[in-house]
Amino acid sequence: MKVVVIGGSGIIGTAVTRELSARHEVIIGGKRSTGLKLDITDSTSVSEFFKNLGRVDAIVTTTGNLHFGPIEETTAEQFNIGLQDKLLGQIRVALIGQHYLSDGGSITLTSGIVADEPIRHGTNATTVNAAVEGFVRSAAIDLPRGIRINAISPTYVNESAGVYGPFFPGYESVPAAKVALAYRRSIDGPQTGRVYHVWH
Amino acid sequence: MKVVVIGGSGIIGTAVTRELSARHEVIIGGKRSTGLKLDITDSTSVSEFFKNLGRVDAIVTTTGNLHFGPIEETTAEQFNIGLQDKLLGQIRVALIGQHYLSDGGSITLTSGIVADEPIRHGTNATTVNAAVEGFVRSAAIDLPRGIRINAISPTYVNESAGVYGPFFPGYESVPAAKVALAYRRSIDGPQTGRVYHVWH
Repeated sequence: MKVVVIGGSGIIGTAVTRELSARHEVIIGGKRSTGLKLDITDSTSVSEFFKNLGRVDAIVTTTGNLHFGPIEETTAEQFNIGLQDKLLGQIRVALIGQHYLSDGGSITLTSGIVADEPIRHGTNATTVNAAVEGFVRSAAIDLPRGIRINAISPTYVNESAGVYGPFFPGYESVPAAKVALAYRRSIDGPQTGRVYHVWH
Repeated sequence: MKVVVIGGSGIIGTAVTRELSARHEVIIGGKRSTGLKLDITDSTSVSEFFKNLGRVDAIVTTTGNLHFGPIEETTAEQFNIGLQDKLLGQIRVALIGQHYLSDGGSITLTSGIVADEPIRHGTNATTVNAAVEGFVRSAAIDLPRGIRINAISPTYVNESAGVYGPFFPGYESVPAAKVALAYRRSIDGPQTGRVYHVWH
C-alpha cells in the first residue's frame, strides 16, 4: 500500500513511519518535513500536495497545534487556533484527501487522551480532540467507496515526557512505538468509525 | 436570578424563556431577536452585549448555525461554518460571559443528539456538537469562582418536526417544553460538566 503520513517527522509520526515501512510504501509530509511540504491550514497547499502524490491507499495525520492556557485568560481568537489547526487542519486533509484515496482506502486522524480526561488549562485540547472523534464517528457513515476512517487517542509518550509529563500527574506514558501499533490496526485492519485508545 | 438566553427567540429558546420566567428575570438576546441584539461570531458584539447587561447569574445559548451536506462535496471552508458559528460562537459567549457571571453562576450551552448518533450528511453537526460537549467537560474543571457549565443535547422537537423529521428516521421527537426542563436542571441544579440528554 501507498501510505502518506502527514506529520511524519514528529515523534509519533516517526514511530508510525517506522512501524509501517516494513510492509508499505510510506510518504512523509509536513510543515517542516524532510519529506514533502504542506500546510494543513491551507486548502491550496493540501490540494497541491495530493495532486503531486496521485492515488494513495491510506492517509494518516499526526499533527496539529492547540492553545493551552487558563480559561479565565483565553480569548475566542486564541481558542480558534486549535479549531483552525489541529481540528480543521486534519479535517481538511480528510476532505481533500478522500478524492485521492483508492476504493476501500483509509484515513487515520489523531485525537488524544484529553478528549476524555480533561487537564488543567486544556479546554482547547479537550474540545478539539472530542471534535476529531465526532468527525470520525460521523464521516464513517458518510464516506463513499468503502473508505474507512478512525482516530487514535494516545496518552503522552515517553519520548516527550520531559515536556508533557508535568501536565499529566498520575497518568502513564507509553513508548511512541506502542502508539504506532494503533495506527497499524487502523490502516491494516477492517474497522471504521473507531477511536483506538492508547492510554497505558 | 438574572438569566440571559441567547437565541431566546428560537423554538427552544422561547420554551426555555417560558420555563424560566416564573422564577427568574429572563433577558433575551440574539441576532434577529426581539430582545437585545448580538452576533455570537463577533467578539466586539458579544463584549458590548455583556457590558450593557452588567452582572448576570446564568447564561444560556440556544443558537448556532451548521453546515449540512454529503462529505464528498464538503469543503474545509463550508466545514468552518459550524466551527465558527455554533461551536466558537457558543464558546465565545462562555469565554466573554464568564467575566460577567456572579460567583456560583452557570453557563448552559446546546449540543444535540447527532453528537452521539450521526445522521447522513451531518458530519459538521456531529463534530460541532461533540466539540461543545468536550468544551463543557473541560471548562467545568477550569472555571473559577464556582462557576458551573453544562450542555443540553436535545433530539429534534415536535415544533420543527416538519423540517427535521425526515433526517431522523425512527427517532422520537419531544415537545420543546420538555427540552426546556433540562435547561432548568442545569441552571437551578447543582451539577457541572454534565451533558443532559433529552432524546425521548
